[in-house]
Amino acid sequence: MKEEVRKFDVLKIEGRNTDRIQDTIVREFALTLFLNTHEVTTLICTPSNLEYLAAGFLFSEGLIKEKEQIKNLTVDHKKGSARVITREGDLDEDSAHWKSLLTPGANRLALLPSDNKAEKKTPINTKMAIKRDQIYSLMDKFDLSPQVFMSTGGTHSAALCDKKDLLLFREDIGRHNAIDKIFGECILRNIQTDDRIIMTSGRVSSQTLNKVSKTNIALIISKSAPTDLGIEISKQVGITLIGFVRGRRMNIYTHDWRVIP
Amino acid sequence: MKEEVRKFDVLKIEGRNTDRIQDTIVREFALTLFLNTHEVTTLICTPSNLEYLAAGFLFSEGLIKEKEQIKNLTVDHKKGSARVITREGDLDEDSAHWKSLLTPGANRLALLPSDNKAEKKTPINTKMAIKRDQIYSLMDKFDLSPQVFMSTGGTHSAALCDKKDLLLFREDIGRHNAIDKIFGECILRNIQTDDRIIMTSGRVSSQTLNKVSKTNIALIISKSAPTDLGIEISKQVGITLIGFVRGRRMNIYTHDWRVIP
Repeated sequence: MKEEVRKFDVLKIEGRNTDRIQDTIVREFALTLFLNTHEVTTLICTPSNLEYLAAGFLFSEGLIKEKEQIKNLTVDHKKGSARVITREGDLDEDSAHWKSLLTPGANRLALLPSDNKAEKKTPINTKMAIKRDQIYSLMDKFDLSPQVFMSTGGTHSAALCDKKDLLLFREDIGRHNAIDKIFGECILRNIQTDDRIIMTSGRVSSQTLNKVSKTNIALIISKSAPTDLGIEISKQVGITLIGFVRGRRMNIYTHDWRVIP
Repeated sequence: MKEEVRKFDVLKIEGRNTDRIQDTIVREFALTLFLNTHEVTTLICTPSNLEYLAAGFLFSEGLIKEKEQIKNLTVDHKKGSARVITREGDLDEDSAHWKSLLTPGANRLALLPSDNKAEKKTPINTKMAIKRDQIYSLMDKFDLSPQVFMSTGGTHSAALCDKKDLLLFREDIGRHNAIDKIFGECILRNIQTDDRIIMTSGRVSSQTLNKVSKTNIALIISKSAPTDLGIEISKQVGITLIGFVRGRRMNIYTHDWRVIP
């Protein structure tokens, strides 16, 4: 399990008790997958069993069908890459299916996924702080808000808040989409984000941070766990990251001076 | 909330009680996003507030910075597309950043995301059936297995089972990755999947089904909710889809003849 987790200093709050402890955090890893000479995709994953992940992804996407097709499968943990070489002539790269895979529209943008490093950013410069009780009160309101979740159990939620209230609330099957819906509404309706807070029901990863750090929001409050890269980027850009806010408990992972007892 | 959910017939089991009810299921929608003449990405989302989602995604990816850049934003629900037109010359498409976005490696595969339709597939042809108590017993074992989740709270799990036991168990921050790790292990270690079962901690969507239906597995057991497309594809390909298996409760969404009281 060594490669799947890392230890971080965390401020753990339970009722009136405060403990600075070493907590175990799940690792996040970007694995770029190559099939023969082709780059297939970059998977954001937990760095264990990467051979299985590479073979399984190719199988699930219908790119390989059986073990016998694989001549060689290597994983380079340092570079974050996996390469599968098939028997010569085994993939019918002249087929219509392959031709469609190999000729993306010339106008398709190549969005770059995470590369296991935090982007360099100017740290956020706000003295904003919040009381513990305000965080609990916001989470109580957040828990009561999701209509689609109440009836289906199938969505994530995100909210924009000030210290006292939820200002915007959105749901989506994708946790990143819920956050994007919030930021899109801010842009289209000219809602400012200075000294405001983002709340999410979902895990806080590098992708979450790359979204939030496009704004000047300095506080992320989540019901769930962060990943190691989520913590590292938060530390670097000056964001206070709070996770596992449940009942009267929470974990503060970075810049805990923003939370006042 | 109308466009975000749909009603499906579900067999609801609680202890010894069986009810055939209409249940509310979250919808899954594929939205392809265009920026001027460029295709940006396809988002699998809940079909509400799609204008906000489109603007928010472009903001989060650093492609637009403010509302003033947007000359026009239209969403076509029927085609599943959103198009953002910026003021002329507003995006610096000659910049190095844009050049890198516009020149993907010629060898990068263009994997096609879901298109709001179920792929046509030959239905699975197995008479395999399982007892209710066997499902509960499998879920009890599944709940006790995740080591990384126990210490971090940040992972999804997947397992391959027969009717009595978990045969393979994997964890990952991505629910699809956990399933791919299982299938990759099956391929690389020549583990057969005939009359076996896939278990997942996560939501069952069209993407889950497109993976599982590459095998001959006829039973998916999940702790969580399905999406509408997850149910539709299961029905079509002959897979029994069971969700919300918690305590002595479960919902059977498709082909419930495979579950014996």
